[in-house]
Amino acid sequence: MSYYEQYRERIDRAIQANRERTYYAPFPENPKSYPENAAALALSRFQACLNNDFTELLQEKPLRFEGEEISPYLQTGLGIRYPIFADKLLVQTASKALDIWRKVSFNERAGILAACLDRMKERFFDIAYATQHTTGQSFMMAFQAGGPHAADRAMEVIAMGMEELRRVPESCVWDKPMGKFNITLQKTWKAMPRGVALVIGCSTFPTWNTLPGVFASLITGNSVIIKPHPKAVLPIAIVVAEMQKVFNEAGITPDVIQLAPDTLAFPLAWELAGHPDVRIIDYTGNTSFGNQLEGLQQTGKQVFTEKAGVNPVIIDSVTDIKAVCDNLAFSLSLYAGQMCTAPQNFFVSHQGIRTPEGMVSVDDFMELFTAALNNISGHPKMAPGVLAALQQDAQKDRIASVAAEFSDAVVLPSNSFANEEFPDARVASPLLLKVDASRTEAYDREWFGPIGVVICTPSTDESLRRVLEMSRRHGAISCGIYCTDPDRVADMADQLARIFVPVSVNLTGPIYLNQHAAFSDFHVTGGNPAGNASFTDALYLNRRFVWVGQRFASSSL
Amino acid sequence: MSYYEQYRERIDRAIQANRERTYYAPFPENPKSYPENAAALALSRFQACLNNDFTELLQEKPLRFEGEEISPYLQTGLGIRYPIFADKLLVQTASKALDIWRKVSFNERAGILAACLDRMKERFFDIAYATQHTTGQSFMMAFQAGGPHAADRAMEVIAMGMEELRRVPESCVWDKPMGKFNITLQKTWKAMPRGVALVIGCSTFPTWNTLPGVFASLITGNSVIIKPHPKAVLPIAIVVAEMQKVFNEAGITPDVIQLAPDTLAFPLAWELAGHPDVRIIDYTGNTSFGNQLEGLQQTGKQVFTEKAGVNPVIIDSVTDIKAVCDNLAFSLSLYAGQMCTAPQNFFVSHQGIRTPEGMVSVDDFMELFTAALNNISGHPKMAPGVLAALQQDAQKDRIASVAAEFSDAVVLPSNSFANEEFPDARVASPLLLKVDASRTEAYDREWFGPIGVVICTPSTDESLRRVLEMSRRHGAISCGIYCTDPDRVADMADQLARIFVPVSVNLTGPIYLNQHAAFSDFHVTGGNPAGNASFTDALYLNRRFVWVGQRFASSSL
Repeated sequence: MSYYEQYRERIDRAIQANRERTYYAPFPENPKSYPENAAALALSRFQACLNNDFTELLQEKPLRFEGEEISPYLQTGLGIRYPIFADKLLVQTASKALDIWRKVSFNERAGILAACLDRMKERFFDIAYATQHTTGQSFMMAFQAGGPHAADRAMEVIAMGMEELRRVPESCVWDKPMGKFNITLQKTWKAMPRGVALVIGCSTFPTWNTLPGVFASLITGNSVIIKPHPKAVLPIAIVVAEMQKVFNEAGITPDVIQLAPDTLAFPLAWELAGHPDVRIIDYTGNTSFGNQLEGLQQTGKQVFTEKAGVNPVIIDSVTDIKAVCDNLAFSLSLYAGQMCTAPQNFFVSHQGIRTPEGMVSVDDFMELFTAALNNISGHPKMAPGVLAALQQDAQKDRIASVAAEFSDAVVLPSNSFANEEFPDARVASPLLLKVDASRTEAYDREWFGPIGVVICTPSTDESLRRVLEMSRRHGAISCGIYCTDPDRVADMADQLARIFVPVSVNLTGPIYLNQHAAFSDFHVTGGNPAGNASFTDALYLNRRFVWVGQRFASSSL
Repeated sequence: MSYYEQYRERIDRAIQANRERTYYAPFPENPKSYPENAAALALSRFQACLNNDFTELLQEKPLRFEGEEISPYLQTGLGIRYPIFADKLLVQTASKALDIWRKVSFNERAGILAACLDRMKERFFDIAYATQHTTGQSFMMAFQAGGPHAADRAMEVIAMGMEELRRVPESCVWDKPMGKFNITLQKTWKAMPRGVALVIGCSTFPTWNTLPGVFASLITGNSVIIKPHPKAVLPIAIVVAEMQKVFNEAGITPDVIQLAPDTLAFPLAWELAGHPDVRIIDYTGNTSFGNQLEGLQQTGKQVFTEKAGVNPVIIDSVTDIKAVCDNLAFSLSLYAGQMCTAPQNFFVSHQGIRTPEGMVSVDDFMELFTAALNNISGHPKMAPGVLAALQQDAQKDRIASVAAEFSDAVVLPSNSFANEEFPDARVASPLLLKVDASRTEAYDREWFGPIGVVICTPSTDESLRRVLEMSRRHGAISCGIYCTDPDRVADMADQLARIFVPVSVNLTGPIYLNQHAAFSDFHVTGGNPAGNASFTDALYLNRRFVWVGQRFASSSL
């Protein structure tokens, strides 16, 4: 039985879901849906990994073994050493593997990739511990985002890939009536992969942000090299190891997917990206290196970026001000503002916020907002569960420097909080500033981490104007609107759509503007400066291959 | 009745055809399919145009009227003066029109664009005379390529656009089960146009190469400015005038599509392309300006190019050598090699060409090839009908300089021939060179116009190697293979597909490698240096808009 036959039903279901965009999650997000002893087994495997060489990869000829991951929870090095390979060897190996992989039918490729996700599923808890202790995410987020949600997005990419690859028939007879006779040609079409693909990972979501690019390049017949962030290697290393096993078992070389660990001292990303045989680059990370990579498009490479934006919320009018404050506080607190979708700038008018009970003044709003933030950071269980840990010291330093620079604007200082399980965790609660709109230096840039700024403007019109102007320059990945006037909402949403910013309107309760669900939400529009690509639109697949037609005189075949 | 309802059946038929890729041509290519007096009426309208201001456009505030078209058949100026507009005004007007056009549903946009093609159809003969007397094409090619074939490709773009725009639902309810309750969101998606689109035309196919980009940008909601080549304005000016009338009648501003004529002395292309509001650029023309425009992608603009390639033919073995020579001679002669798909380099092995009757030596092949070329250029009717006229003096100069530089390699000199209807036509029959493969300076570049080079190599393997190597550097839009061994053909086609070069195999009779049919053949793959875009793949549409999702708490709508 081919892999395709084995997974056909699941693939077809995913294609259908991707078309409908209603709720669909092939990989359950609840850890309880998985075997009871899975967590314990994974934890012991994780512990066995520490201070050892990582030897699960089916890759030969490492130059040496090195690693520099630090657990944000333990603030000690993990001691895991990964094989380091010569960049030229990686590309050479990938080029050879490409010529094998491209000849596998796309149906079978889809089956094999679905099998990879099944195998990944068996390691969801391993990935969770690995993600927690590299990114600083809480265990629950590390499990959900690192495992099932990442696999959902990979499955979504398989579905979208199948849609694209099936758009053109494999062959047809072209028969043109010429009056007394017909001209007949046999025609075939092939979706040819562009070449070796490089995926550059980030330190906060090492699987969720990496797998879409990996699966998009693979389903379209390219071979892939993953260059993980040196501070977050283990989660994706586990996935690659499992994928390599599947490729091996399928009788295809495991070289189709390779891991290329590096170190801060000897980075490999630019070397790999610049290699002439690397034709596709996926990148999640800071704007400046992202822009540098986008420059490679000039040489015909396809570059897919998710850089950074400054995510705004406009608060005009609400039905339940407390529910709104709770929702916003959670959005800002979740993983300590280290999600690329986290809100940073909260725009309110000097006149306050309209509610059914009358206007809520800015001061009253500030009180409710800070109370809601304190409810999270002051709660012994919620604080570690929601705020989790800071991935880097840089986040901590940034909080301190912003608090110092704008000390007179601080409404709520950032504090530490207790984490019973991990007393040494690198933690901080959100710093909240309040400034007048004229003080642009306090909010006209990204403050990555748990930093929120409430900006008082003369009116909601002015709030919108500033949001539009800033989003045009910095980009935005998410945007919240709170407004009870449907016409007003439609107009604001339309103006933001014109600059390719997606909005979430009047969210309260347990749904947050930071969350982007596979099979439904596009993650990053690709149209504003926050990034040039989107999980997962048709472009995300189509840019990775080229349709090549071939025509044969009927007599010649 | 909406435009969509009126044209729905035709649009649906086009969508179906575009999926199947079998023969389909909504606009008959035979002039006899059109009203009997259409040609005569069009000719008198054409004559009335000469030495006059072109006043059909619904565009205000021209700075002045100028024109510099020269008929390749009369070698005198047409004297038609077109309105010249300020580039800033053009973009400003387009920006305003965009905000009207984008709000028209894509169904209705498709209907209006189909109506534009219907109106264009009434001017096919006008376009034919205009095309003939600007490009130098024969009347028959000017009619077919300038009218019905161009309209076919525009209709194909409408079809592909509808496929893309319908891929994501307009709205849905997203309902996530959370155990005891569900989270429900209303979601909507909009395909937002990227902005003002600029289409830069060429001098040889002023409608065929221009309309795909125009219709692709329009169906996806963008407004369009066409900057025609100053030597070939009239054909596209007629189309724009008709489209503006349709937009006007539909109650939409004619500003959605504008013509931006310029002159060689005061070119507008770079000015328009650089304007920050211009987000999409389509270009057909020389490689150096094409590369310059592609550089604008760094600023987030979407740039679609068709530049130039060097099109090769590999002749290894044939069943009927005479039929092959006739076919190749026609391909090289058609419109005097001025098609971007015309073959230039003919690779044969020193050993000759295998046939059922034994090996045909290179000398015998040369004799048959030159005889076939002479059959065309020496035939009083075929010569003007097939070879037509040279668009520019530059083509004539190039023939002379190549013949002088490689005088010892000339097998067949370029000659003049009589054109009874137009005694002053700028004409030339093909120049044919024969060189050893080592003499790369004779063929390792594009010789635009009627220049062919037969290249003798040690073997077909070596021919292929050179073709692959040259196509990688220069690109190729078409490629011919003659080989009677199916395994060999498959291998060669595969190696060429890997570098994104499409092949036509063993063509004889009245079908030529230069011809690319709408609804079936991709024109330019977009994967090799000949151009970065393809008529018409999904990318050609998807790069022109951005999906923007919006999410609403259920209570808020």
